[in-house]
Amino acid sequence: MEVIRKNFKEALPLVAASVKKADFLVIDTEFTGIINGRDVSMFDTPEEYYKCTQRGSSEFLLIQFGLCAFHWNHKEKHYMNDAYNFYLFPRGSPGPDRMFMCQSSSLDFLASQGFDFNKLIKDGISYMTVPIECKLRENLTERQKTYSKGKDSIKVPDEHKAYVEDICNQVHQFLEEGQLDEMEIDKCNSFVRLLLFQELRARFKDKILVETKILENKNRLLNVKRVKSQDDLKNHDALKKEREWEDFEDAVGFSKVARMISESEKLVVGHNMLLDVMHTLNHFFQPLPAEYTQFKEFTHCMFPHILDTKYMSSLPPFKDKVNSSILKHLLATLSAAPFSLPKVVSDEGRGYSQLHEKHHEAGYDAYVTGLCFLAMHSHLANMRGDDTTRFLSITSPLIKPFLNKVFLSRTAHQDSPFINLAGPEPLPPRDHVFHLAFPREWQRNEITQLFSPFGPITVQFIDDTSAFVALARREQATSVSKALAKHSKITLTSYYKYKKINDTPSSKTATKTAEAANNDCKKTEKTPVRTSALQINATATTPVNKVIIPEKVPRDLSNSVFPITPPRKRTFSTSSGGFEVNELESPTKKLKGASETKKRIDEKIIDRFDSEAKPACVTVFKDDDCWD
Amino acid sequence: MEVIRKNFKEALPLVAASVKKADFLVIDTEFTGIINGRDVSMFDTPEEYYKCTQRGSSEFLLIQFGLCAFHWNHKEKHYMNDAYNFYLFPRGSPGPDRMFMCQSSSLDFLASQGFDFNKLIKDGISYMTVPIECKLRENLTERQKTYSKGKDSIKVPDEHKAYVEDICNQVHQFLEEGQLDEMEIDKCNSFVRLLLFQELRARFKDKILVETKILENKNRLLNVKRVKSQDDLKNHDALKKEREWEDFEDAVGFSKVARMISESEKLVVGHNMLLDVMHTLNHFFQPLPAEYTQFKEFTHCMFPHILDTKYMSSLPPFKDKVNSSILKHLLATLSAAPFSLPKVVSDEGRGYSQLHEKHHEAGYDAYVTGLCFLAMHSHLANMRGDDTTRFLSITSPLIKPFLNKVFLSRTAHQDSPFINLAGPEPLPPRDHVFHLAFPREWQRNEITQLFSPFGPITVQFIDDTSAFVALARREQATSVSKALAKHSKITLTSYYKYKKINDTPSSKTATKTAEAANNDCKKTEKTPVRTSALQINATATTPVNKVIIPEKVPRDLSNSVFPITPPRKRTFSTSSGGFEVNELESPTKKLKGASETKKRIDEKIIDRFDSEAKPACVTVFKDDDCWD
Repeated sequence: MEVIRKNFKEALPLVAASVKKADFLVIDTEFTGIINGRDVSMFDTPEEYYKCTQRGSSEFLLIQFGLCAFHWNHKEKHYMNDAYNFYLFPRGSPGPDRMFMCQSSSLDFLASQGFDFNKLIKDGISYMTVPIECKLRENLTERQKTYSKGKDSIKVPDEHKAYVEDICNQVHQFLEEGQLDEMEIDKCNSFVRLLLFQELRARFKDKILVETKILENKNRLLNVKRVKSQDDLKNHDALKKEREWEDFEDAVGFSKVARMISESEKLVVGHNMLLDVMHTLNHFFQPLPAEYTQFKEFTHCMFPHILDTKYMSSLPPFKDKVNSSILKHLLATLSAAPFSLPKVVSDEGRGYSQLHEKHHEAGYDAYVTGLCFLAMHSHLANMRGDDTTRFLSITSPLIKPFLNKVFLSRTAHQDSPFINLAGPEPLPPRDHVFHLAFPREWQRNEITQLFSPFGPITVQFIDDTSAFVALARREQATSVSKALAKHSKITLTSYYKYKKINDTPSSKTATKTAEAANNDCKKTEKTPVRTSALQINATATTPVNKVIIPEKVPRDLSNSVFPITPPRKRTFSTSSGGFEVNELESPTKKLKGASETKKRIDEKIIDRFDSEAKPACVTVFKDDDCWD
Repeated sequence: MEVIRKNFKEALPLVAASVKKADFLVIDTEFTGIINGRDVSMFDTPEEYYKCTQRGSSEFLLIQFGLCAFHWNHKEKHYMNDAYNFYLFPRGSPGPDRMFMCQSSSLDFLASQGFDFNKLIKDGISYMTVPIECKLRENLTERQKTYSKGKDSIKVPDEHKAYVEDICNQVHQFLEEGQLDEMEIDKCNSFVRLLLFQELRARFKDKILVETKILENKNRLLNVKRVKSQDDLKNHDALKKEREWEDFEDAVGFSKVARMISESEKLVVGHNMLLDVMHTLNHFFQPLPAEYTQFKEFTHCMFPHILDTKYMSSLPPFKDKVNSSILKHLLATLSAAPFSLPKVVSDEGRGYSQLHEKHHEAGYDAYVTGLCFLAMHSHLANMRGDDTTRFLSITSPLIKPFLNKVFLSRTAHQDSPFINLAGPEPLPPRDHVFHLAFPREWQRNEITQLFSPFGPITVQFIDDTSAFVALARREQATSVSKALAKHSKITLTSYYKYKKINDTPSSKTATKTAEAANNDCKKTEKTPVRTSALQINATATTPVNKVIIPEKVPRDLSNSVFPITPPRKRTFSTSSGGFEVNELESPTKKLKGASETKKRIDEKIIDRFDSEAKPACVTVFKDDDCWD
């Protein structure tokens, strides 16, 4: 079901009912860009991975949200899906006028998938975060108190006197003649409208109502209405206030659905869902915290049960049978033996079937992700001799290894493949990794040759003259350091030392040794900080969003489904799950010739220079199709 | 005529012919946003105005360019218009993948005017600046040299060995059977495609050609072609190179038209054209310099004859007769006595007529601007007893007072109403202006009362607790300073002192006294720096764009119309033009109650908080309709 602002109000109770009866929910989102600035690196820890993604993606907009709710048909013994594909666009007034970033290749991609940008901008549903909602509610309440009070007057400048006088005469005539109930004044800029507004109110007081009218084409007119009774005036004020609150609720818009999903505390399934989760929190709840541990707590608090089908498919018994975990490919793989897709139907017009084939429409992708989850879930059940096709409980041992783990693409040899929202992650050591500075004319071959006495290497280029190099034979690290220390053409620095020098103070924790960091995780595990969403927010506003946090306790959000008080108290599960080495990673290939990319770590890149960008250096996410 | 990427190549010679035969050209543009961060202030000098606009608008994208060329029909004695409405979208590869900013209210506005965003993203013409074009040309040339060389090989990871082996067998079979000429390999992610590419080339060498094929829906396949003769291989390489250069020329795209307009050195007319000019230079030529004098020189070098109809209409004999200079209103005013619109027609499908009424379509607005220019031009000629309707020469005394002056909206009482591209501007003194810090609970009334002993004031609020206050009775400045120096609730600082403290080092010049600054202008006038565009660029890259300037002399741009060498030498006209006080300005009104805006000067604002934003505090540009 497509939901735009015209049918949002009617859809809201349907969504609530779908969420309520669902066994599990699946989400998918589309945004205006993937990453701005430096990409994640294959040697990033989960913490560095988060920080990099958070910095690089928070200014993009979330423009489509797919929600697919799966509920069980007891009579027919199969699943039904209720699917919603929401177009989202926060269009300003009465919401905030949003400044947001776009990536041209992302919009181009969405357009090629049939994404309708006209529908987005004309009919998209608005949304806002909780702190902004609180602030704006307060503003509107305060402003409405002033409606009865008078305003300061501005002296009419000489050059406008004749025109103002002329209009006043016309209004006088309109009142005298008494034939029409309204008149309109056109062809004024806003300053002249302001003058007229003031002069007409002063001269004709309670005889007329003056309002600015905004036409469909955004032209503005002054509308003058004859007041017939004093009730007209009173009703006018009450109606105006009511209309303003209605507009305000429209502007809160989709945030209500997101908060409804959170409130349900049901299993939320996604495919490669890190960005989906991050954007969902950032746009409908509050700006993401800069600190990794706060992010994990915040996410786990808002979505206590998460399952990522890309992570699930990367573990046994699936990993050997899944050649590519791109969603479309995964669906194809799970459609054939030894797997099978479950029967899932929908009531007319309420959900998808496979015939729709609307890949990259958020609602359809959510539906397909749900099918994949059910196929893998059934496979696991079958292996245990259980032929159930229903997912019954979040405490099911079948999904325990995958629960609350979010897939990270392209970490080195997949040795750090997930974020564990409910506990610490293993931190693979980086003692065998070096930062290498080399001459501009060097290519991959020269580097391979340099390290050839020490066995195979993995190279990740940073720019024209530097790269990270990882040894396959880790025990060779000391020999390498010694042997290359005095090489005249290169400079070799240990990975930890390099990170220590180059990290910003705020990300210093990332430079601790693996052991120290693991200890930290254990500490966190023992004393989890149970902070409500708004408390986290008050201490961790990201500089990018410049969100001004209200100092006082937020106003009652009774119109919203978001629970401000009491803060939720959830126990933090600390099961760390098995550590799995997944797919071997391909090293990023350095480009030949003069066309190397100029990408530098931690730099904000507005233009990408290299026309080779797409096939060879744009990002872990896109080229690798890993972001599907 | 609508121009999109499908018909761009055919349109290019038509555009060239239109430009060649035109008496004058009119331009108009649409962008993805107006301003991000602090708005221009009514007390800004032209230099501050430029810097503020440059900082706040350079990350937006130019998405539509209207060009209307007016040429004289000698036989019928009236003008003809050739109009082009270009949809522009730089979609990445082989151009740079652009990161750009959007403002939700701007997109909403464009959508309400019927702007087609789907057409934009699917069919928009690409563009790039000169430095990027140079860099990418060089990259492509270098890359093509490497096509014949071999590449490093990657070890096939164990989990992919079976699959790679299977595909190799299929290719072997395809070659053996010899029935088909091509086969496709689907369902691989990019890493697997890379492995296959390498393995197939190694095993089957010159027997096959392997290529990645990108489908309409952006899916990627591996395409394997049987090689029938050695010519196939050679042609394949040559064809590939040719196709790459064609794609590259498409990516340079619209920049060629912009450079064609510059090359023509004809009169370029626009309405309120500061942003049009800035975006045109920034997107098709090179990033705007941070320094104001460099901007003026650069602009004057690229567009030596500019006329702004909004500025023209703000001077006598028009100012008293033009109630609102919003383009649509101006057209209406100039359609009636004492003015009259000229007869302008077009060949079928080549231009607009007034019946089109496509306001805010860049091409139509350019056409309307041309009509307004001709109407005002005829009016001036008539006043001199000349009944010509043709604009004959850029040396005409009729347009001299308006030439190369770009309108600035909303400076205080319009006392600094233009940028003079060809010389210095008058710098009105600010001795009568103060920065006032006041208690949070204060409103406009309290401020008015505070200053009441010193006559009327103009207030421009900065935020909840500070404002600029200007005295109508300038001679009272000293008395005010003395009288309020020890007031317990407020702090009063002179405008110059405040600017000195708060300005960034780079804008320090703006804090000089008016006298000193005027002296500076005179100095500049005596020794104008004649720098070619690329020289300016090399020293004045804006940090926002992070453009890496090629250190060497750029490659030959023979395919482009942009003249790199020799740099143009144009004499700088230094006529300063009469200084005119135009419209009296309305002070920005402070909002009542707790809803005041949090806008702070020089801050980058991503979310605007105040839902009152639109009617009362969003920017000089929009609400005032001044940006039309």
